[in-house]
Amino acid sequence: MVIRRPTLLIDKQRALHNIYRMKTKADRYGIQLRPHFKTHQSATVGEWFRSAGVEAITVSSVAMARYFADDGWSDITIAFPVNLREMDEINELAERITLHVLVESAETVDFLANNITHHLNAWIKIDTGSHRTGIASDRPEEIRAVAGTIANADRITLKGILTHAGHTYNARSKEEIQKIHEDSTEQMRNVRAMLSSERFSGIEISVGDTPTASVAENWDGIDEMRPGNFVFYDVIQYFIGSCGFEDIAVVVACPVVAKHGGRQEIVIYGGAVHYSKDGTVDEEGRKIFGLIADHVSDTIGPVRSGSYVRSASQEHGIVKAAKDLFNRIKQGDLLYVVPVHSCLAMNLLNDVYTLDGERVTHMRSGL
Amino acid sequence: MVIRRPTLLIDKQRALHNIYRMKTKADRYGIQLRPHFKTHQSATVGEWFRSAGVEAITVSSVAMARYFADDGWSDITIAFPVNLREMDEINELAERITLHVLVESAETVDFLANNITHHLNAWIKIDTGSHRTGIASDRPEEIRAVAGTIANADRITLKGILTHAGHTYNARSKEEIQKIHEDSTEQMRNVRAMLSSERFSGIEISVGDTPTASVAENWDGIDEMRPGNFVFYDVIQYFIGSCGFEDIAVVVACPVVAKHGGRQEIVIYGGAVHYSKDGTVDEEGRKIFGLIADHVSDTIGPVRSGSYVRSASQEHGIVKAAKDLFNRIKQGDLLYVVPVHSCLAMNLLNDVYTLDGERVTHMRSGL
Repeated sequence: MVIRRPTLLIDKQRALHNIYRMKTKADRYGIQLRPHFKTHQSATVGEWFRSAGVEAITVSSVAMARYFADDGWSDITIAFPVNLREMDEINELAERITLHVLVESAETVDFLANNITHHLNAWIKIDTGSHRTGIASDRPEEIRAVAGTIANADRITLKGILTHAGHTYNARSKEEIQKIHEDSTEQMRNVRAMLSSERFSGIEISVGDTPTASVAENWDGIDEMRPGNFVFYDVIQYFIGSCGFEDIAVVVACPVVAKHGGRQEIVIYGGAVHYSKDGTVDEEGRKIFGLIADHVSDTIGPVRSGSYVRSASQEHGIVKAAKDLFNRIKQGDLLYVVPVHSCLAMNLLNDVYTLDGERVTHMRSGL
Repeated sequence: MVIRRPTLLIDKQRALHNIYRMKTKADRYGIQLRPHFKTHQSATVGEWFRSAGVEAITVSSVAMARYFADDGWSDITIAFPVNLREMDEINELAERITLHVLVESAETVDFLANNITHHLNAWIKIDTGSHRTGIASDRPEEIRAVAGTIANADRITLKGILTHAGHTYNARSKEEIQKIHEDSTEQMRNVRAMLSSERFSGIEISVGDTPTASVAENWDGIDEMRPGNFVFYDVIQYFIGSCGFEDIAVVVACPVVAKHGGRQEIVIYGGAVHYSKDGTVDEEGRKIFGLIADHVSDTIGPVRSGSYVRSASQEHGIVKAAKDLFNRIKQGDLLYVVPVHSCLAMNLLNDVYTLDGERVTHMRSGL
């Protein structure tokens, strides 16, 4: 395989290791692993999950549900508030697979009840602190009202309550992640107890996010976990404390196109349209858009200390390089950027391969 | 046209107005307008430029040059440092069109001289302060050395010197933009004078960037301008002072999927994979990922004051909404997000239409 343009390379052995480790953990606690496939959006990577015994998945859009349903997945949760404008597509999916949707208002449930033509499973989205979507866990009346509306709907089953503790992304240690997990799962258990004390029984609890799924060891009362990013991990997860650098399974190979000795900077072909404009802050307080893997052969080499992507414009990346890296590298060489956010890099890049040169097909393949 | 998913809508009349205004300005000063097509990457929008008499264009990758060459454009500058790994593609292009490339080291020129099979025009990239790429204008010996190497190469013509004053993006007023423009063009004139005093004659000067092209009125000695973003503009250009809100020609139509009364927030289907993770800071110091157009009909309505996208995750956007907007909007409605960076939104969205419902094809169409 000759790399000419920015190309996403997946360390398949590491990705498989990440998948099997998470599946083993879920099995150990008797929890269903329903991985989030928005990270890879890939039929090829989906096969790797199948090989580990995964049968149920999570996606973030109706289009993605369709893509994976076409690939033979028959139990899919769309972990995104129902988009009323895609009712036809939702009906079409509900007819051929076991479909789960998220609701957080009686208004949505009413709309579904009036428009659904096949059976649906509904999960009430609970906000345990991330404040993105969901009903706050301390609003029992709202939660009860939604549950009641579902119970009255003919073709909708109230399957459970679901949360995404996205505020773990602000954590910077395993201890912080665990604290958020304890707090978040405690809220979920309380909501279930409240619902059970009414007429709602058999309510399951589903929780998501890679940091807690990677780190937490208390899963009392949890029925399902939906991490996604863990298959690849990335710089954000590494900084949060969800993984080691040696767990990261993706890099973007970028051709070196210029060097600037005065600033000790390397210009690469690889920017915002290749690994996104998502940045993070390193421990020295610098804004960075990627780290650099020392080398890539049969696996992804260690992090190159002192080197990082300091700026990303549309097609350019500017790499601050440690002296030895700067001296060694020359125009036409490849630099291996570890993306800040692997989900966004995967979404952007059409050219995706394993380190062995196996083509990885995904939703955007073909362009 | 029924909008079901996040969709980029172009106000074609405004885009045409932006194109004609810039072309008229360039003509008035006797400068060639060589617009940067990385903003739209679209054959359809390219036609709008053709209708205004534009014949030469700029692109940011070899793949983009190929796309537009296939669409009949025969005079293309790849405004990106030469990627040695794409030599075959460069030769293939040089055979069929008038191709211009950027060089900033004797090493690259040597490589080209040894590998090029057809005629190439070379521009020496000068850094006038943006510190992304190029040779600093105060390094005459380096510039002279590259010019000398080009002069000795058989199939390469030294066409001129070229800069991108990207530091205008830090400006926040017309005066600041003009000051950077004066300084940057003065450096370019000095570099040309230096080269002319040697044996290099007929050296042209090409400058880029939308802020100076939109605002500056002193073009003494400049031969070519390469703005790109001006066809659409966006929130960043509006904040810089390059345009009024009424010049912005793109919005992303996003379905409303949830409302949160306590926080007065609207959740939209539309996030980082639709308009990118590029953010900016508004005058109140808030990080924002988009503004909201009040409405969209035959044109894009005025900005909705007090409302903005405060957070963008993969598929979600969280809109802080002014009270009247919050009360009026309901689930299933559309919100119109004015992107922070229109080039990145256009790169991400497959569904692109004019307000009249005309389909706009671009490099990523078909997925």
